[in-house]
Amino acid sequence: MDNSKKILVINCGSSSLKYEVYLMPSKESMGKGLVERIGENEGHICQESPKGTYDLVTPIIDHQVAMELVAYALTDEKLGILKNITEIEGVGHRVVHGGEDYAESVIIDEKVLKCIDKNSELAPLHNPANLIGIKESAKLLPAVKQVAVFDTAFHQTLPPAAYLYGIPHEFYDKYKIRRYGFHGTSHRFVAQKALEMCKRSASNTNIITCHLGNGASITSIMNGESVDTSMGFTPLAGLLMGTRSGDIDPSIVFFLMERGYSSHDLNDILNKKSGLLGMTGISNDLRDIEDAAEIGDERAIEALDAYAYRVRKYIGSYSANLVKVDILVFTGGVGQYGVKMRERICKRMQNIGVHIDCDKNREVGGKPGIISEPYSPVTIVVMPTNEELQIATDAYNLIF
Amino acid sequence: MDNSKKILVINCGSSSLKYEVYLMPSKESMGKGLVERIGENEGHICQESPKGTYDLVTPIIDHQVAMELVAYALTDEKLGILKNITEIEGVGHRVVHGGEDYAESVIIDEKVLKCIDKNSELAPLHNPANLIGIKESAKLLPAVKQVAVFDTAFHQTLPPAAYLYGIPHEFYDKYKIRRYGFHGTSHRFVAQKALEMCKRSASNTNIITCHLGNGASITSIMNGESVDTSMGFTPLAGLLMGTRSGDIDPSIVFFLMERGYSSHDLNDILNKKSGLLGMTGISNDLRDIEDAAEIGDERAIEALDAYAYRVRKYIGSYSANLVKVDILVFTGGVGQYGVKMRERICKRMQNIGVHIDCDKNREVGGKPGIISEPYSPVTIVVMPTNEELQIATDAYNLIF
Repeated sequence: MDNSKKILVINCGSSSLKYEVYLMPSKESMGKGLVERIGENEGHICQESPKGTYDLVTPIIDHQVAMELVAYALTDEKLGILKNITEIEGVGHRVVHGGEDYAESVIIDEKVLKCIDKNSELAPLHNPANLIGIKESAKLLPAVKQVAVFDTAFHQTLPPAAYLYGIPHEFYDKYKIRRYGFHGTSHRFVAQKALEMCKRSASNTNIITCHLGNGASITSIMNGESVDTSMGFTPLAGLLMGTRSGDIDPSIVFFLMERGYSSHDLNDILNKKSGLLGMTGISNDLRDIEDAAEIGDERAIEALDAYAYRVRKYIGSYSANLVKVDILVFTGGVGQYGVKMRERICKRMQNIGVHIDCDKNREVGGKPGIISEPYSPVTIVVMPTNEELQIATDAYNLIF
Repeated sequence: MDNSKKILVINCGSSSLKYEVYLMPSKESMGKGLVERIGENEGHICQESPKGTYDLVTPIIDHQVAMELVAYALTDEKLGILKNITEIEGVGHRVVHGGEDYAESVIIDEKVLKCIDKNSELAPLHNPANLIGIKESAKLLPAVKQVAVFDTAFHQTLPPAAYLYGIPHEFYDKYKIRRYGFHGTSHRFVAQKALEMCKRSASNTNIITCHLGNGASITSIMNGESVDTSMGFTPLAGLLMGTRSGDIDPSIVFFLMERGYSSHDLNDILNKKSGLLGMTGISNDLRDIEDAAEIGDERAIEALDAYAYRVRKYIGSYSANLVKVDILVFTGGVGQYGVKMRERICKRMQNIGVHIDCDKNREVGGKPGIISEPYSPVTIVVMPTNEELQIATDAYNLIF
């Protein structure tokens, strides 16, 4: 195609950098890669494309070096995807926190950079790394427009009843403490794909999307807009996750602090040592818990029950607040491939119009498909997510 | 009645003591009273009965003196309820926390006393005061059997999926951190009364009971047993309340601690300065918030929306996990008298089978009655609670 554009998608973390090149508007992936252990002597870059696998272990002292390695890999004579890095005509960046400033993706300028920096207070682990990624790619491709795609943006349509906490209003005024929600790019992507699959338009369609991965969240979507989501001020809240607790009685924090745990300890425990891992002591991976449950491990059985129960609770809580639910979407590692978990979740929700066809559920497996009974008021859809493609699409649409 | 028994009900707090005398099994209240400001020079006792109001301001140095004053008031020549304190043939005590030890009310012996004391760790403000009440009434009425009725007991039927948090299992093993739930005596009482009103038996009936007072909780009841409830390890969790935050992202605690708040400050803020009071800056009383909303106060309007929204979320979360919901009960100050709030809550829940008749809702007001449309799959019931009567009933049933 003559008018096709190559868009580079970058997801930059504090010690890693994921990237992918898309051909737009045809949405073909040309290849993707991952740089790991940035800042270490044994840095690693691995790139996959139809040309083959590019793999290199080398010291990567900082993100500038990482970005240069990406350029080398992309243009490698044998395994590269591009002839010249200047073929890239747009860059899309995943940015975790847009605060209340961004309800949509945006072309990055000085003002946007400042705003991402300001919102680092709300995402101290992520926004600074995202900023580094933006700055390094701007150095590499100074003539190319860059776009920020925020995890929080899709949820900026939440009404106050859903985003305000029952805490003194000054905490919102002063610190902007409220529900933001995350995984917005994924929820938006799979909702749109599910609409296409069900041949419906966003208007007059209500969707509940379950992004169940190592992190997990559920979103309620009315007429194409997010009206509630289970993650909160941070990604700790909501569902039971791989290592995150999800919702707990906040008094538990005070109770444990009185018994000698520090705020720092508890933050670490609730984010990294809780969830499925903490409950079972086995693993943060649902597949391991399923295996353990099958040989009768009681804690594994309890954790699976609790996981499904909590998902049902959130689906029910959103269902009660919508005039109807048309589509229920499962995505993310667990949502897409966790056939047994989907059955466990859906089998007991007939009361709110969710009727799963267990045979279809097994047949569909990890592919996109409909897994509900024909008479189910709520159509249940399995839909692989693709945040990178959504980022590339947003970048393309904004730049061209 | 020859075989009628007089049961004294005691609810002993750290600086107050509520009491009431019931004639059983006829369930008639003979009178009730309140001792306030125990430990102060300006202590106060006030007793109401058909004989009139007994009112006295006097120093009340401790609970022993308080209990003696109760005995005087009960047997006052002019305004008393009894000729002699020995007419009391049973005492029922409200005890907040029975931990995992008590799923039912129990006649108090040495073992029970020890157990209530042990569970003080879980309710450090309440159980010690409850214990003092038991000991003082035992001194006053040494020949009479005493019964403990626990706020937590009704919820001991919760399955692990509902009571386990997504935290390391050792916190449950070591500290018994789990969901306990509270208001159990009230949920049990109104559920039974609603069954009588709807002429149904507990078996094969599912009920969701909303106890909405200054403290508030919702319980899911299947075949007469509590299967989930919105309060958690402590009464802080769950709904938006008068001064309590209810559910929040636990990370908010860490975020604010990094900004100089102490654990003690935050515990105090979330329990006493949050909820409706914190969100509006106006009051912890729903009636004041309704008044402010009517003259256009934006924060009041938002708080009312958030209050109703959160109630709907819990009702929906329980509805999704029951095969059907037969009865939805409203009780507590807000639940019984908050006509507008009931309408606000129920008006948008048709999707889960809740159809309110707004005219009936206004007609019923604060009286017991059914306020749903005849075609509503879920029957909506207003039912005044009476925890004292439930305590008297339990005591009577156990002793006689």
